[in-house]
Parts: sequence; structure tokens; C-alpha cells
Amino acid sequence: MLRGQAVAGQALVAAIDIGGTKIAGALVGAEDGLLHHRTERPTRAGEGGQAVFAALTEVLAELRASADWSRVRLVGVGSAGPVDTVRGTVSPVNIPGWRDFPVVREVSFLADGLPTVLTGDGVAMAAAEHWRGAARGFDNALCLVVSTGVGGGLVLGGALYPGPSGNAGHIGHISVDLDGDPCPCGSRGCLEGLASGTAIARHALAAGWRPRGGGLVDISGGATAVAVAESARDGDPRALSAFARAGQALAAGIAATATLVELDVVVIGGGVAQAGDLLLGPLRARLAEYATLSYVRGLRICQAELATDAGLVGAAAAALWATEK
Amino acid sequence: MLRGQAVAGQALVAAIDIGGTKIAGALVGAEDGLLHHRTERPTRAGEGGQAVFAALTEVLAELRASADWSRVRLVGVGSAGPVDTVRGTVSPVNIPGWRDFPVVREVSFLADGLPTVLTGDGVAMAAAEHWRGAARGFDNALCLVVSTGVGGGLVLGGALYPGPSGNAGHIGHISVDLDGDPCPCGSRGCLEGLASGTAIARHALAAGWRPRGGGLVDISGGATAVAVAESARDGDPRALSAFARAGQALAAGIAATATLVELDVVVIGGGVAQAGDLLLGPLRARLAEYATLSYVRGLRICQAELATDAGLVGAAAAALWATEK
Repeated sequence: MLRGQAVAGQALVAAIDIGGTKIAGALVGAEDGLLHHRTERPTRAGEGGQAVFAALTEVLAELRASADWSRVRLVGVGSAGPVDTVRGTVSPVNIPGWRDFPVVREVSFLADGLPTVLTGDGVAMAAAEHWRGAARGFDNALCLVVSTGVGGGLVLGGALYPGPSGNAGHIGHISVDLDGDPCPCGSRGCLEGLASGTAIARHALAAGWRPRGGGLVDISGGATAVAVAESARDGDPRALSAFARAGQALAAGIAATATLVELDVVVIGGGVAQAGDLLLGPLRARLAEYATLSYVRGLRICQAELATDAGLVGAAAAALWATEK
Repeated sequence: MLRGQAVAGQALVAAIDIGGTKIAGALVGAEDGLLHHRTERPTRAGEGGQAVFAALTEVLAELRASADWSRVRLVGVGSAGPVDTVRGTVSPVNIPGWRDFPVVREVSFLADGLPTVLTGDGVAMAAAEHWRGAARGFDNALCLVVSTGVGGGLVLGGALYPGPSGNAGHIGHISVDLDGDPCPCGSRGCLEGLASGTAIARHALAAGWRPRGGGLVDISGGATAVAVAESARDGDPRALSAFARAGQALAAGIAATATLVELDVVVIGGGVAQAGDLLLGPLRARLAEYATLSYVRGLRICQAELATDAGLVGAAAAALWATEK
């Protein structure tokens, strides 16, 4: 997955990726970006903040037990947002037991006091793709994750742009439909509500689509968007329409971002993006309609290169970037 | 208008502001930001590219004729967009006779070969407000001009952020209504089409509002938005509704920008912004609905401090910024 040769004896970054489903960890080569000693635990978000902390502790304990721990110089923590990188706290929407949880202090304590850098997961994904993936070599990039939700991160002027509190690039919660449906965030017409896996499934179901086999309808998103993609590949017009609408909304949001900050490339990852041209086809077609000004025309759209471990690579990349800048 | 004391004997910047209606020029103090020898000519955009060039030549000739010209070290050109700061060309939408016009080369030639820096007018406005106006002291700012059109510029991380080609911050052409009305730019649902002076007048007229005195209805924007504001102050519900809709659209666009790049302050200038609370009241109220994430709540909204000469001050400020960075 990662390009390049392994570098022997290099410094390592302990990377932690905190999501609503799992907490992953690995030691990441500071030079080659390769993963070692990858491990993970279920987040157990439904069991309260202490259970999540226990999972985090186990992941870190496993990393510390490795023979390579002595080469770790830095810890990078990527987390579902919102994050507050100034205070070192996180309040992940899908981990209700953690509100203003002091993750930097706790992780640093568990990691023998090593310097610890916190990054939002969207920003981490952008760091990963800029370091080792599809955004490599581009100075101005938007990297999106389209899965159960929609997140993102920015590279501006050749450097990661996390913004003052680490949340910049959070494209899922810009409104592209000012009179649109209410979003759980409190706003309305948010891109996430139109383009996430959940939204794609909801759109298809509302049009009368049902998963093949007639099993239970899981409207939680990820799994069902995969089923919608299967039907779309068979030519089901309700499934195709759901992807077309998501592509249109992504086009409007991406064009807005390019108009505001100027972009060279947009990288799209996450589970829903694995539908490939089912999503990217309509997205590219509609982008030509929304991105009309001379400086945003011809914007390049790529699929992400770092799949499941982008969060870990990105947490490490962002930590290295923050300490080297 | 400008704060601070005049500085004697300081270096000067020759500033040029190219708009669809007039071309203005002045010598601007590099330290105090004060204007000297201000002059202007009608752009004569309808008479072709040569007529516009003649107007530009006259403005520069008048500046060169001043006794202070010997203290000019630098030329700053602000222009209606789109601009291309890499190639030094402009293609202002409202000056059809100039397409890829090499304004940097021409102005530098007319100005004895002095270094010449090109800036888009929205970015120039942000430079002016950050140097001498309402954005002073803020590291992350969006400055908007709401007049016949809607433009803007960004300050990020404490510095002007013009973007690679000088067009960043062009908020008027982000879509806040993905299924909305077509925009002359080719997209649809653009903020400018919902919030400009022209849009406010169109909204009021469509609701049955007519200017007092029953004179000719000027749908070109600026003047009529002033008439709508007069009626709104008298409580006319159709006029109030037009400002409410513009405020809502601006709220959605501003919230999107803050969500994408994180902002400390938003500064609003331009003719329509002079309606004051008629526009800012609904804008602030609706902003609370669209800017809901923790890191964008409580965003400060201010009126611009530099009125009619912001373009000249900004052209000078951006030129100084570009040569000092």
C-alpha cells in the first residue's frame, strides 16, 4: 500500500487512531511511513467513557510492550471530532462518554511522557495522503472521507492546514442547501446529510429500493451503502439516483471549497468512495457545473491511496509535521 | 477614517484600484496607510479595452506628476476578478474588453519599471481591513464586500491568504443552494445570486415592492438596494423579507467558510452592508443556526471600517505584504 523502501533503525512514531467503532494503534516509521505492531480494540463507546479509556490503555500497553518501543520519539493521536488541539481535548460525536476528554495528557502519561500531538481524523487523513498517498506533491489539496459521515482536511500552500483548533476542512458540515433538511449538528442542508453512506441508503430506501435477499434494512449507513452500490452496478435506477444525488452534493461542496481556498487536487477516501465510478462519475460530471470560475475549472479528483490505515499513517504524519515545522 | 498619525518622509506605494465603474489611484504611505494625491477616472468599460487602458494611463500619469513620486518604491494594483497573479493578468467580468490583460507588465512600464504587485479586489479589501480596519489584530478573518456583487478575501494564520492565483476567498460564487437558480457564472445557487444588492432588489420587486415616488425601477442593484433599505426602515414587510433572505444566505456562506478554515472574525463592507442592522441583524440571527459546531460558534461579525478607499489601501497593503513576506 505504502510506496517506498523500509528504512532500518529509523525513529518511530506511536500512532493512535480513535474512532467510534475501534481504537487502533501502530508504530509508524518516521522516514518510510510503514506500520509495525498494528493492533486495535473495539471502542465500546456505548459502555461509557471509562470503557473507552480502558481500550485506549490496552492499545498503548501493547505498543509499549514491543521491542521497538525504545525507538519511539513521538506520539500522534488522531481522533474523531470535534477536537481542540489547543487544549488537547476531544469530544467525539460518536463517543458520548468523552466530552472535553484530555486525551493528550492521558496518552502522554501512558506513553512515558513522550511528546504527544493531537489531530482531527479528517486532518489526519489529509496528512496521510499528502505524505504517502494521492495528494503527494500537491501544494493545495482537500482530502475527504466519505463513509457513515463526511469529513475532510486541507493542505494549503504546501503544508497541512489544521486551523487554529485542529478542525479545518470539516466539509461534511457546510450547508450546500440553505433551506434543506435539518442536520443532527443543528444546521440544515449539510453535505453529510446528502452524501454520506447513511444519506445514500436513505435516499435509495425512500425511492423504494430494497437490499437484495430482502433481509433486514440496516439504515446505519456503511453496510447499506455497499448494498445500494451492488444494486446500482446492476442498473437499478433508484440506487443510481442515490449515488447521483450524493455526487451532486459532493460536487457543490468541493467547488465551494476550491472557490474559497484554491485547490490543485481533491482526494476522496472512506468506505463509500470504494464504490468508485458510481460515486466519482456523477461527482466529476456535476463538478463541471459548480466549479465554473477560471481558477477552479479542471480540478483533479482522485481516489485515496491509503485505505484502512490512513488514520494511523496520518496521525503519525501530522505529529511529525507539527514538531518539525 | 484611518487610525494613527501621519508619518513624514516615509516610502510610498502607488495604489491603483480597477473596477467596472471607475479606476482610482493614490499614493499610500507605507507606514501610516494614509492616502495622498487621490484621483480617479471613469472606467468606460463599455467603450472597449483601449478606452479602459487610456483611463488607467491617465490615472498613473497624474500620480507620476506629483512631487511625491520620487518616494514611491512599489506599485500595488487591485482589480476586479478573476485575476491571475502568477501571470500578472486580469479578466474582469465587468470589463469585457480586457481578457488576460497583462496589467502588471503595462502598469510597471507606465510606472518607470517599479515592482508591481497584482491583487484581486476581494483580497485587497481583506488586506486593508487587516492592516488598518476591523480585522486588525485577528489572525483568521474573512472580509466580504456586499454590493452589486459579493466578493471576499481571507486572512489565515495571521497572514493574507490570496491563494496560488490570487482568487481565494471569492465567497460570492460558492453555491449555498445546490438546486437553486442558475448564476451568470455557470453554476447555480451562488451566494451572490441570493445576497447581492441586485438580488435584494430582485427579491423585493418580485414580492410586489416598488420604490417610493414610483420612478423608474433600476434593477442594476446598488441604487435600488438603497431604496429597498429605505422601505425596510419604514417597516415594509416585502423589503424586510428581501434583507432577511440575503442575511440568511450570507449566514450559510459565512458558516461554510468558518467550518472549512476556522475564523475569528468576519468583516462585512460594500454598499449593501451600509444598510447596517437591516442586513446584519438577520445575518447574525441565522448564523447561529448554520454555525453550530463548537469551533465556529460565537463567530464575531463586524462592519468594515475602511469605506470607499478600502480598494486603494488594500492594493497598497497587499503589495507591501507580498514584498515583505
